[in-house]
Amino acid sequence: MPTVIEGDPATRIEAVNTLSDATPKELGFLANPRYAEQLSTTRAAAVIVDNDVEPPQPMTLLRTAQPYCAVREAVVMIHGFRRHPQWGIHPNATVSPGAKIGKNANIGPYVTVEEGVVIGDGVVLYPGCAIGQSSRLGDDVTLHPNVVIYAESIIGSRVEIHAGTVIGEDGLGYAPDGEKWAKFPHVGRVIIEDDVEIGANCTIDRAMLGNTVLGRGGKFSDLIAIGHGAKIGENAMFVAQVGLAGSVTVGRNVKMGGQAGVIGHVTIGDDANIGAKAGVAHDVDSKEYVLGQPAIKASDAKRVISITQKLPDLKQRVKAIEAELAEMRDSVAPSAAD
Amino acid sequence: MPTVIEGDPATRIEAVNTLSDATPKELGFLANPRYAEQLSTTRAAAVIVDNDVEPPQPMTLLRTAQPYCAVREAVVMIHGFRRHPQWGIHPNATVSPGAKIGKNANIGPYVTVEEGVVIGDGVVLYPGCAIGQSSRLGDDVTLHPNVVIYAESIIGSRVEIHAGTVIGEDGLGYAPDGEKWAKFPHVGRVIIEDDVEIGANCTIDRAMLGNTVLGRGGKFSDLIAIGHGAKIGENAMFVAQVGLAGSVTVGRNVKMGGQAGVIGHVTIGDDANIGAKAGVAHDVDSKEYVLGQPAIKASDAKRVISITQKLPDLKQRVKAIEAELAEMRDSVAPSAAD
Amino acid sequence: MPTVIEGDPATRIEAVNTLSDATPKELGFLANPRYAEQLSTTRAAAVIVDNDVEPPQPMTLLRTAQPYCAVREAVVMIHGFRRHPQWGIHPNATVSPGAKIGKNANIGPYVTVEEGVVIGDGVVLYPGCAIGQSSRLGDDVTLHPNVVIYAESIIGSRVEIHAGTVIGEDGLGYAPDGEKWAKFPHVGRVIIEDDVEIGANCTIDRAMLGNTVLGRGGKFSDLIAIGHGAKIGENAMFVAQVGLAGSVTVGRNVKMGGQAGVIGHVTIGDDANIGAKAGVAHDVDSKEYVLGQPAIKASDAKRVISITQKLPDLKQRVKAIEAELAEMRDSVAPSAAD
Repeated sequence: MPTVIEGDPATRIEAVNTLSDATPKELGFLANPRYAEQLSTTRAAAVIVDNDVEPPQPMTLLRTAQPYCAVREAVVMIHGFRRHPQWGIHPNATVSPGAKIGKNANIGPYVTVEEGVVIGDGVVLYPGCAIGQSSRLGDDVTLHPNVVIYAESIIGSRVEIHAGTVIGEDGLGYAPDGEKWAKFPHVGRVIIEDDVEIGANCTIDRAMLGNTVLGRGGKFSDLIAIGHGAKIGENAMFVAQVGLAGSVTVGRNVKMGGQAGVIGHVTIGDDANIGAKAGVAHDVDSKEYVLGQPAIKASDAKRVISITQKLPDLKQRVKAIEAELAEMRDSVAPSAAD
Repeated sequence: MPTVIEGDPATRIEAVNTLSDATPKELGFLANPRYAEQLSTTRAAAVIVDNDVEPPQPMTLLRTAQPYCAVREAVVMIHGFRRHPQWGIHPNATVSPGAKIGKNANIGPYVTVEEGVVIGDGVVLYPGCAIGQSSRLGDDVTLHPNVVIYAESIIGSRVEIHAGTVIGEDGLGYAPDGEKWAKFPHVGRVIIEDDVEIGANCTIDRAMLGNTVLGRGGKFSDLIAIGHGAKIGENAMFVAQVGLAGSVTVGRNVKMGGQAGVIGHVTIGDDANIGAKAGVAHDVDSKEYVLGQPAIKASDAKRVISITQKLPDLKQRVKAIEAELAEMRDSVAPSAAD
Repeated sequence: MPTVIEGDPATRIEAVNTLSDATPKELGFLANPRYAEQLSTTRAAAVIVDNDVEPPQPMTLLRTAQPYCAVREAVVMIHGFRRHPQWGIHPNATVSPGAKIGKNANIGPYVTVEEGVVIGDGVVLYPGCAIGQSSRLGDDVTLHPNVVIYAESIIGSRVEIHAGTVIGEDGLGYAPDGEKWAKFPHVGRVIIEDDVEIGANCTIDRAMLGNTVLGRGGKFSDLIAIGHGAKIGENAMFVAQVGLAGSVTVGRNVKMGGQAGVIGHVTIGDDANIGAKAGVAHDVDSKEYVLGQPAIKASDAKRVISITQKLPDLKQRVKAIEAELAEMRDSVAPSAAD
């Protein structure tokens, strides 16, 4: 990304930090205009800004069209990614002799790997993970502590799953049997494609039949519930506490805001954007942005919300009209009695 | 369930699958009219349908009044239920000598069973489960990996709990102490009755005093939070991410949609149906179906939602009325000045 | 707290219980008027009540201005707090030789403590906890089973964290890279100050840069998601399933109702009160009480909700007005044609 330095190109940087917390040895950044005022008070040695920012006083700037991407690059360069503990295969792990583990495995204490599991090269399994029978993990998978992978799940390469997330549990599938519920065996699987990252304490139900699929490159935050048989396209971006009921189909590049929910069997098109807390009860077209409960087009939803919040006014206006009409009636009535 | 075969009764079936994914050796099904069009493209060897479906081309059909129940029976017959790994009592489990374990126990690695625990016959404890002091588990209980049972909990027979779920943690109980909060010891318990199934990463608070109860036969999906002292009747069906605050009382056969929530001390009657994302702030009568935030009768809620979404029209109509009245006023006023 | 005994001061009490469940050897209480009717049916030996309650029949009462605080004191006195199992450092725990553990440590089976960790005195780590590299835990910290602390987290003294909660996972931080997402390394930390209690299966994201902070004395229920870089003031009280997006700032003494959510970068003032299920999209002033989605002042929200639920009436009234106007128009029009 093209970056232009204004000021002292010999400025030394030891770390990246926020404008408010940066010390004189650190690089700050302004990627959200909300924090523009902090430019006048920051102690940062230099600041990443976009091409339009005018600093309130002379300061060393790194100008770029996309400051957020630039700060990410700076952090990768200066700080790098997480360095994992090195366990090899820890003596306190329990790996079935029938499991097949790739090269350079790094498997922590109290990990259980069941019979028939196949794991690629360079995998990191943090303490307490449980990998169920006949599951398959690709290369360079990282599972943080206490991740649970149920039997027969398929996890692609470079997948990272944060602590406590559960992959492949049964969904809520029962047939009515009088007032009781008869369990539907869940003989399907979960497939998580390459380069997916999943946050902590999520739950991804296995399909009753067929597959639940999280498409390549999707990014999921924490405490997300994905129902049985849901199929999510590539490059999803789901904020925390999203819930998808069973058999939902989601296209490519779909964003879902925090605490949004989708009822069963709905289809969401490519590039759609689902607002925070939205309740999606109907199919959503490609590229559509929806909001509200039930979710409708965001432009409509915003008008509806704006009018709803002024309903006391509207009611008052109706009351005033009624009063005027009543007066007109009264003023007409006597004359009619003349 | 009476099922009638139309077509070739000698058709061989190796598996059950969805209409879209079924191969010519598999049995498909049509239980949701949403998928009716797939009848013309499915490759399934035969299809379970209801009594009214007219197939678009000749095909082998299994007709029944309740296709969803029939497909469940077929899956049970052909695929059966999960087969657990066989650990016996794994040498890497830590079972207190003061615990009492029934016959045919199947306890995986890294399970901890504390002092005073009593466990029935045929229990399956997956890796990483922790069973707190003096808890009791009935016969044929299955706990998936990393389930946590706090001390003194009571779990009935044939209960199945999915990975990462926590039973019996303290609830949010504090007395104000100036600006601080003084913790209320939670000396109550959780009782989970027979035949309950709970999804992954749920949290069931123990009561402060007395019991939190999940009644017999209830089915709970993932990421559900049940507050301290809540009492839920038999055969509940709760979708993912439902939340019940403390001391809520729920009758028999109650359904709650995904992400629905109930405030504290509310009572919900038998056979009630709480819509997805509903916010229940008042008692709900038996057999009532409620929706919305705050939740009201579904029939009312649907009218309100429909009118709300057309509020821009209503506002426009009020504006037009005001304009007409103003015009009338103007046309009257000059004449009054005559 | 001053308490006055009415009735027999020699009444013997063995336990505290709810009015409905108390036996004749137990102390009941009436702290919520909702349960007042149970006074006439309770079998409790004595009842804690406020100064205004008039019992329906003679009974031994403990009168106090704050019955809820009094019952808490009675429970602490009679029942006390949880007694932990005594493991010392269990032989089935894996403690890095480079970790530093304080006095009287009580560390259960299958706990992993990584390199560089520093732990204070009197800590209790239940089975299956994983403490990442270079984390620091203060004195008298209690972690229930399967809690995960990522590397470099800082946990204050007397912090209690319930089972399955995850502290310090990466947040949802990615820069766009065409249609793909480029991960932002999370080099910040989580700081949990003294006397915080966190429920089960929560997720507290580490900051990308700087710190995510849970202020001293805050109390958090279950399944709560806190985004990267959020900063929460002292004495917070968050009900289950609350979600805070990244970089939210919350003042002191803030209460959030169940399933409430806050979008990123919002500031919430001291002593604010966020209603259950509220969707906070804008800054909230100190002491303000907000409700709704999007959240507005509670007094306004209540009026809006009340009018919204009566929208069918309002629509009917507009229709009646339109009819009357049309009639007036008709009655005027012919006369104009005279």
